[in-house]
Amino acid sequence: MALPDNFKHYMSGLIGQDAVASIVITILLIPQSLAYAQLASLPPEVGLMASILPLVAYALLGRSSVLAVGPVAIVALMTAAALQGAGIVDPTAKVAAAGVLALMIGGILIAAGLLRLGFLANYLSQPVIHGFIISSSIIILISQLRHMLDVTLTAHEPLFQFLELVQSLVASNPTTVILGLATFAILFGFPKAMTASLPKSARETTIGDLLPRVAPLVAIAVTAFAAVVLPAVQVPLTGEVSTALPDLTAITQGLGAAELLWPSALLIALIAFTESLAVARSFAARKKEKIEANRELIAIGAANAAAALSGGMPVAGGFARTAVSFAAGAATRAAGAMTAGLIALSLVFFTGLYAYIPKVTLAVIIIFSISKMIRFGEILPIWRYSPLDAGVYALTAGGVFLLGVEMGLLMGVVLSIIIFIARAGRPHIAQVGRIAGSEHFRNVRRHSVLTHNHLLMVRVDESLYFANALFLENDLMTRVQDHDGLTDVVLLASAVNKIDWSAMETLERINGDLKARGIRFHLAEVKGPVMDRIERSDLLAHLTGEIFLSASVAESTLGANGRGAKSQMVDGAGI
Amino acid sequence: MALPDNFKHYMSGLIGQDAVASIVITILLIPQSLAYAQLASLPPEVGLMASILPLVAYALLGRSSVLAVGPVAIVALMTAAALQGAGIVDPTAKVAAAGVLALMIGGILIAAGLLRLGFLANYLSQPVIHGFIISSSIIILISQLRHMLDVTLTAHEPLFQFLELVQSLVASNPTTVILGLATFAILFGFPKAMTASLPKSARETTIGDLLPRVAPLVAIAVTAFAAVVLPAVQVPLTGEVSTALPDLTAITQGLGAAELLWPSALLIALIAFTESLAVARSFAARKKEKIEANRELIAIGAANAAAALSGGMPVAGGFARTAVSFAAGAATRAAGAMTAGLIALSLVFFTGLYAYIPKVTLAVIIIFSISKMIRFGEILPIWRYSPLDAGVYALTAGGVFLLGVEMGLLMGVVLSIIIFIARAGRPHIAQVGRIAGSEHFRNVRRHSVLTHNHLLMVRVDESLYFANALFLENDLMTRVQDHDGLTDVVLLASAVNKIDWSAMETLERINGDLKARGIRFHLAEVKGPVMDRIERSDLLAHLTGEIFLSASVAESTLGANGRGAKSQMVDGAGI
Repeated sequence: MALPDNFKHYMSGLIGQDAVASIVITILLIPQSLAYAQLASLPPEVGLMASILPLVAYALLGRSSVLAVGPVAIVALMTAAALQGAGIVDPTAKVAAAGVLALMIGGILIAAGLLRLGFLANYLSQPVIHGFIISSSIIILISQLRHMLDVTLTAHEPLFQFLELVQSLVASNPTTVILGLATFAILFGFPKAMTASLPKSARETTIGDLLPRVAPLVAIAVTAFAAVVLPAVQVPLTGEVSTALPDLTAITQGLGAAELLWPSALLIALIAFTESLAVARSFAARKKEKIEANRELIAIGAANAAAALSGGMPVAGGFARTAVSFAAGAATRAAGAMTAGLIALSLVFFTGLYAYIPKVTLAVIIIFSISKMIRFGEILPIWRYSPLDAGVYALTAGGVFLLGVEMGLLMGVVLSIIIFIARAGRPHIAQVGRIAGSEHFRNVRRHSVLTHNHLLMVRVDESLYFANALFLENDLMTRVQDHDGLTDVVLLASAVNKIDWSAMETLERINGDLKARGIRFHLAEVKGPVMDRIERSDLLAHLTGEIFLSASVAESTLGANGRGAKSQMVDGAGI
Repeated sequence: MALPDNFKHYMSGLIGQDAVASIVITILLIPQSLAYAQLASLPPEVGLMASILPLVAYALLGRSSVLAVGPVAIVALMTAAALQGAGIVDPTAKVAAAGVLALMIGGILIAAGLLRLGFLANYLSQPVIHGFIISSSIIILISQLRHMLDVTLTAHEPLFQFLELVQSLVASNPTTVILGLATFAILFGFPKAMTASLPKSARETTIGDLLPRVAPLVAIAVTAFAAVVLPAVQVPLTGEVSTALPDLTAITQGLGAAELLWPSALLIALIAFTESLAVARSFAARKKEKIEANRELIAIGAANAAAALSGGMPVAGGFARTAVSFAAGAATRAAGAMTAGLIALSLVFFTGLYAYIPKVTLAVIIIFSISKMIRFGEILPIWRYSPLDAGVYALTAGGVFLLGVEMGLLMGVVLSIIIFIARAGRPHIAQVGRIAGSEHFRNVRRHSVLTHNHLLMVRVDESLYFANALFLENDLMTRVQDHDGLTDVVLLASAVNKIDWSAMETLERINGDLKARGIRFHLAEVKGPVMDRIERSDLLAHLTGEIFLSASVAESTLGANGRGAKSQMVDGAGI
């Protein structure tokens, strides 16, 4: 059997790139898997299992060659919140419920992909996403600080947890604090030391780029060694990592919680997909790949289903990890599959070692990576651009922090949609006139143009919908009332892409109202698809005026009927 | 003290017109007030009281000279449903609760007017309104048919009530059926007889127009007379009309039900306002009056508050009544105040007579007037125009009939908004080229235009929002991928009226992605207000290309860099 050409091509070169990338990703993924399992309040092996089969599933179905799936911080946080919200506290029940949750998320994403609902992710606006991320990061930060201080928190709300942490400062365990600070020092100092020790020529190479990223593994090795050999270091450890094959019957035991977990599953599915898609897209341009939302829905869904069936937790594509995968030169999706193999091997050979990792080390790894997301200044450019968008950001951030991720996200999405509708409900409407000697018609308030006393030409800069039809009617009739001696009104529809039934009824009413005042109503610059619709309505049967191809033709035809053009110039203060 | 000129002018002529109009409106309003009180399952005096002070309140605060407020069918139906939904069955408690409901509706409308929320009425699309009206009318029809058959219904749902009515046909009271048919005959035949008996010259006069409208009063007189003098006519009568002054302490007793009535109050307020505004607007054009939504909110709110304080029921402006007021030549809002006086006088002098009106007569008056609203064919033009809009109509109508007015309206509004958002999420995007020898640029799929191999000019026909930003990005990058040898992309923003923060981030990403592919990104025809915004963002700092005033300038500048223009003609099959 001859091997296909592209397989030979792959074996001859790309496989080497993928192998290097997979080793680098594994080095980053092991600490992250352990840490995010801890963040999700699950045992460490759940994080590791979520970094094996899901990667294979994505490699088989996804499109991005660099997207690195696995446990991610915000999904881990939402998983913890979902389990807590469903009142699940028993450790075994938690693992089962996390599997059920991943299964539901997988099912939702695959179904959404088959139903081609990928476009729904568009409805999370950027202010909502940014507001959600900053508050989630702060919540994660607070939740992990307790491992640093080695205190137990009784509160569930982030605000009260924070206050409790402040009160517990005096009661904190000096050993974990020192170990935590040591971890910070390694995470911060190791990359700098590495870069400094490399010859200048090597810094720009792949090795120079990747060596600093070993820092988390170094921190784990150093602190675990300290915990094992120094008798003075008495800190909580990750504990024994189970190497038993996942028990599929556990999932069936967790199914009872499914009913309680549905709302969380829907929301985590949305967030996991939005995050994965954003990460995949941001690297796709550089790899000149094309990412298709519905295809990714199915692939991320399959990854979650695979996590569920192998004792893992909900997964998504992670940004930091994907950046590493890209920098390490991952050439094809096989890199992900190889990473899965390496993680599986590590689970077989190093399980005994994982047990000695101090919890504080994993907590500091999370804090270190999440703190990059907390930039309070990011609201400033949004505020400068649009205070309303900044309001959405602030409401989402405040809602997530004070009322929980689900309520906060919902508030942000609803406010975004209200603003969107309200904006479209007040379209820009301008009276226009001819720029002398040209075929161009412009706003009388911004330009010096020619207008007629008996002819009102008005341009509406929006499609016409139920939400803005009455606004148009009001605006138009006010202009008509303000103009004495009118005989003709022309509505320029150059920016009208759609007219719904409500707006069509409004146009008929405007036509009738103008008729009652002895004024003819005309349309001009109606686009093809809109004209096709108008022909299916009664408007043409009742229209007192004509439909002109252009504003220029309308003005030439109707202007001659009146007392001639007069030049009107209004200052540019208006809009 | 000298009288103001406009008062003298009024006394010299308009007062006569208003007096005639008020007599005509009173003749119509008395039977309607009694009938709609019956529809609302309230005693007759509640309907009459709702036709006195509310008219004065509207005359003081409203703007329409012809809008006739008072009890209306759909608001009466919703009032009955609200009282039933709150579990209020005791007759005295019902009257008190109807007052509380009117007070809440008044408060909501006045508050909405002060907060300038009149624009909210725009979000009831025409398909929703029409679907709501037809189903409400059918529900009213079914509810009144029981008076015609003189049977008691046990079901509350219209569908089951209808089935019960069909089953009860055999058990119906022949006397009420005959009296009902007689009422129908008078309502139908009297106007025809009047018109036929008038000389042709008189038919076009005001008297010719108004005389047929006395029919309901004639029907009442005839059937009441029959019920009193013919021993064979044993039918349920309206019963004694209380002339006691309204007991204001009753309202305080009803306040307990307020909590249960809030959702209904909100919805009735919305419907009462939407109906009143639609009626006022449709006659304003003919009277050359200008109706301002927020002003009307306050006036209709005051009318409801006045109803509450005088033992009435929720009120709104009614279409049929306003048409009569217009036809009778009401000149100023004083006509409404005079009508109130006449109703008050009738309450003093004719109360004894009202008691003998058969219920079936009022029921048939309601059926006769409401059946004009039931036109099943009205969905056809909507369907022809837009099947999606017809779907909203059908969903609202079905929801109102099967699940109740509140759920049905909610479903219709939500579906309208979903369609609105989904439509705006998929804007029309077209590649354009120059029409040879002109400054016009048109869609390459619809026109024969000149394009360049290295220059892609794309026009987007929608403002850019979070909801369509990713759609634009996807569409644009697909076009870029399909064009080899591109060096420049120009986005024509002639139809872009707003760019929100999310879309601005997307433009920055598009700029970055094109840069990674070695392609420059330009904008052209950016409107003034949009440009003001762009200057507040980071886009200008990163933009690889330029911002051109027009498509023509962009093409002249960038076209020269390449291998010259080639003519491209594509058939007009696409959009």
